Amino acid sequence: MLLEAIYHQPKSQYAYAYDEETLHIRVRTKRGDMDRVAVIWGDKYNFSDETITETPMEVFAQDSLFDYYHAEVKPPHLRFAYAFKFEQGKSVVYYNEVGFSEGKMQSSGVGMLWSPSGMFEFPFLNPIDVNKPPEWVKQAVFYQIFPERFANGDPSLNPPETEAWTADAEPTRTNFFGGDLQGVIDHLDYLKNLGITCIYFTPFFEAYSNHKYDTIDYLKVDPQFGTNEKAKELVDEAHKRGIRVMLDAVFNHSGYYFPPFQDVLQNGANSPYKDWFHIKEFPVQTNPPNYHAFAFEPHMPKLNTENPELKEYLLEVARYWVEDIGIDGWRLDVANEVDHRFWRDFRATVKRANPEAYILGEIWHNSLAWLGGDQFDAVMNYPVTNSIIDFFVKNEIDAESFMGRLDQLKIAYPMQANEVAFNLLDSHDTPRLLTIADGNKARMKLAAAFKLTYFGAPCIYYGDEIGMDGGADPGCRKPMIWEEDKQDHELFAFYQRLIELRKNHPALQNGTFRFLSAEKNKGYVAFERTDSQDRFVIMMNSSDKKAKIRTSGFGKAAFRDTATNK
Amino acid sequence: MLLEAIYHQPKSQYAYAYDEETLHIRVRTKRGDMDRVAVIWGDKYNFSDETITETPMEVFAQDSLFDYYHAEVKPPHLRFAYAFKFEQGKSVVYYNEVGFSEGKMQSSGVGMLWSPSGMFEFPFLNPIDVNKPPEWVKQAVFYQIFPERFANGDPSLNPPETEAWTADAEPTRTNFFGGDLQGVIDHLDYLKNLGITCIYFTPFFEAYSNHKYDTIDYLKVDPQFGTNEKAKELVDEAHKRGIRVMLDAVFNHSGYYFPPFQDVLQNGANSPYKDWFHIKEFPVQTNPPNYHAFAFEPHMPKLNTENPELKEYLLEVARYWVEDIGIDGWRLDVANEVDHRFWRDFRATVKRANPEAYILGEIWHNSLAWLGGDQFDAVMNYPVTNSIIDFFVKNEIDAESFMGRLDQLKIAYPMQANEVAFNLLDSHDTPRLLTIADGNKARMKLAAAFKLTYFGAPCIYYGDEIGMDGGADPGCRKPMIWEEDKQDHELFAFYQRLIELRKNHPALQNGTFRFLSAEKNKGYVAFERTDSQDRFVIMMNSSDKKAKIRTSGFGKAAFRDTATNK
Repeated sequence: MLLEAIYHQPKSQYAYAYDEETLHIRVRTKRGDMDRVAVIWGDKYNFSDETITETPMEVFAQDSLFDYYHAEVKPPHLRFAYAFKFEQGKSVVYYNEVGFSEGKMQSSGVGMLWSPSGMFEFPFLNPIDVNKPPEWVKQAVFYQIFPERFANGDPSLNPPETEAWTADAEPTRTNFFGGDLQGVIDHLDYLKNLGITCIYFTPFFEAYSNHKYDTIDYLKVDPQFGTNEKAKELVDEAHKRGIRVMLDAVFNHSGYYFPPFQDVLQNGANSPYKDWFHIKEFPVQTNPPNYHAFAFEPHMPKLNTENPELKEYLLEVARYWVEDIGIDGWRLDVANEVDHRFWRDFRATVKRANPEAYILGEIWHNSLAWLGGDQFDAVMNYPVTNSIIDFFVKNEIDAESFMGRLDQLKIAYPMQANEVAFNLLDSHDTPRLLTIADGNKARMKLAAAFKLTYFGAPCIYYGDEIGMDGGADPGCRKPMIWEEDKQDHELFAFYQRLIELRKNHPALQNGTFRFLSAEKNKGYVAFERTDSQDRFVIMMNSSDKKAKIRTSGFGKAAFRDTATNK
Repeated sequence: MLLEAIYHQPKSQYAYAYDEETLHIRVRTKRGDMDRVAVIWGDKYNFSDETITETPMEVFAQDSLFDYYHAEVKPPHLRFAYAFKFEQGKSVVYYNEVGFSEGKMQSSGVGMLWSPSGMFEFPFLNPIDVNKPPEWVKQAVFYQIFPERFANGDPSLNPPETEAWTADAEPTRTNFFGGDLQGVIDHLDYLKNLGITCIYFTPFFEAYSNHKYDTIDYLKVDPQFGTNEKAKELVDEAHKRGIRVMLDAVFNHSGYYFPPFQDVLQNGANSPYKDWFHIKEFPVQTNPPNYHAFAFEPHMPKLNTENPELKEYLLEVARYWVEDIGIDGWRLDVANEVDHRFWRDFRATVKRANPEAYILGEIWHNSLAWLGGDQFDAVMNYPVTNSIIDFFVKNEIDAESFMGRLDQLKIAYPMQANEVAFNLLDSHDTPRLLTIADGNKARMKLAAAFKLTYFGAPCIYYGDEIGMDGGADPGCRKPMIWEEDKQDHELFAFYQRLIELRKNHPALQNGTFRFLSAEKNKGYVAFERTDSQDRFVIMMNSSDKKAKIRTSGFGKAAFRDTATNK
């Protein structure tokens, strides 16, 4: 056995409460190293050979180096002391907090009266510590709207020099097309028809730019888009159609024209807002900035979220839109650069206003530190984005590598966070899916089909479903094409059907996921999604060649037409 | 290279803020596998071959399987993107969030506009997230007092049937000897003379038992010990002598006679306190208990720290003793079974009352989940207890294993937590050190000497310094011997001199610690403690044979008499 490969950390993504009575226990080993792995456990105050239980563990995830074993346990007194047992041929190795031991489990301890000495512990499953993301997200299908570009429903709000909304309009970094909230209200039935259950809006608060990430007033809809009353109307109309609404906000930095920052620019050290930012010295200078900023962008001064007055203001923002306007979630821009205490208080504020609100952080890298149940429900799932695109769209990695990347992610977080992860394939920050696929619609469909049959909440970027294309910003931000003869109806029907399939079968939303085939140097995969109702076996070929796939090991399955159910 | 052995987790004990400008970055490799390890880093918004820095890493800890590399970095914009570079002979392997790559660092990412795709990240060092335990603890020498057994200063408070305070008195689980707070006040000069800077009291709140862990009133000194005014006098008198005071409290469970529990026993589901506990069903029964309890002990009902009213009461307890009575710290009994949210709010309450208060959790196992700066400053360092005893007292493990166990602990937590770890060798819960050593005073001294020259805050259990012995509870709880002719004055002087040495040389308190010699099958070790002032090279032999130790690799050292400084 390769002991160096074995990894476990108590009270982490390797040992956590899944619900108020269930613990998930995991351990990593070298791939293919073990014949059997088990968790040996009992109550810490009554731990002996007579009282302990041995629960077999199963391979839950795999990559090129490792197997990740998983078991579910329900300790009757909510206390849990445990060790691992590894078997390879005739060799048996135990692993607990003391370390590894062959043949017999070792314990340690000087006068440890109570402690089952040397065991790993999950000391007590306190319900309040259980990470409980909102259930509705598991069933949700999101649709991302960039408000300036979805629909112009009220031309009276058009900003000066608004350009014509045509199918061949060319967005620039600074131009405007007049999209607004009324435009969204006008097309809610379109979204309902597609099967959407939640809109994710990029910011619509008052700001200078067309993307509105440079906030001027966090408590006010940008006048180009409408009013706060219009936002409330939008939320109410959406809710009537079974569609929820998530807003995007930037608490990491403000816009240059945020009045408190303007006050600091004018009044320097005398400004009452001087501690709302990270000013290194006075007088303030903007080029280069002598304050912390988003990236090196002087027009986006970083907010000092430690400051109590600023924090109070921002938490009121968090509360207002949830409680008074009725939104169902927050997507948090540059969430990883804001302090953790702010997010803990943010979560408390938001969940007090609506316990079912969804809190989604924009984080591009490993996000474990935010997903313990005290900060975010989930993060933007960019690693899944990249994996799907590299396998299905670019055909750059093989099936084994695709599995490894997804499975590493599966093991990287508690399952709750994965179940409500936000799975996108493109956005206002990336080229559009069809463009990444070089116009290859078949590959685009493969990617979308995988996303819509994988766990986590899928999101569709506005217009993808009707075949819009576009490169990186600004190309991906074209006005939505509403001229029916310029929309790809076949593609729309494809999305609509997959969404319907997903919504009709909880197994596709939140059933277990397991790869059945993901071989080295192969371009096809097979996987299953299972719950108590259904078992889906899904086979997808990303290579340009026909693939023969041996289904004998996949278990029994009756092939049915998912549309007719026959 | 053994890739399976390499481990890193961003934003964990492997990557954390040490202070407001410094990050500690660590990575694990197979022991002896690498010739060189470096961290390659830069600003995430300006990450390119021209702007990155390569910082060599050093072996910071070792055990039988692994080397643990460590580096300190100061990112100028407080943002940090990084990868690792491993060198073995001519082979170079890079490791970042994408995985391992040979020869050239790989990156990934679809349209990742900003993110230095594929790098690990510490996104922003926000000052408020830095774990800052109180500085004074690094210099402290603690002394643990079991109030019923330290000194009887006011016989008028003696409980009925108080037994005689003699050197051969035999404690039982239920008897009383009349120790009280006046007794402690009377002997503060004794503690000052020994060199003590902080007293750790096991509980002195009103309770039924002699150990007082079964609290009846958290806001009141037990009448057997005195009054709250007497406690304030004790704290003030101690402070005058430069001695701080830490109290012990049990927030996990109450005593049976805690009035709210009595109310629940009497009034059942009608009690206003019914949700202060974890009652599974009404009517309440105590044998066996149909409520969660400490262990299986019906007389210690577990408190429901999620309940807002109970929580408010307990947080007021936390505030009162710190703010109104002036104590300097809390030692928290069975801290691992209480919910994490309670501890976060507890910390906020205590640090608001006194930012320099020390928060110490009683946890016997891996405590990482509590040591992120949001809950405890440190934990009772039982793994160090066991390691010192196994090596120096029982002579059961070899030097390499001793090093491995200490070094695993060193890498298990952020350095801040290690610097203020609470290092004890015995307590009211274990046999006394001299008894563990089978009366072998030389071994006892070795253990004490190591503890007093190691990092973390050392604690002496009352009476150890004068040669008291005793087995497990109740034997270890004998009344303190005050008859001078029955005290071991030589041992007292030994403790006194070591404490003075430690206090005079910050290198022994908080200098870097490194093993210079810790070989397989050997019974001796050498280590150094270094700061900008001093470098100590300390050699200790735990075997029964004379040891020859080769000092040629230890660097230059001038041997001086630590007492005379010559």
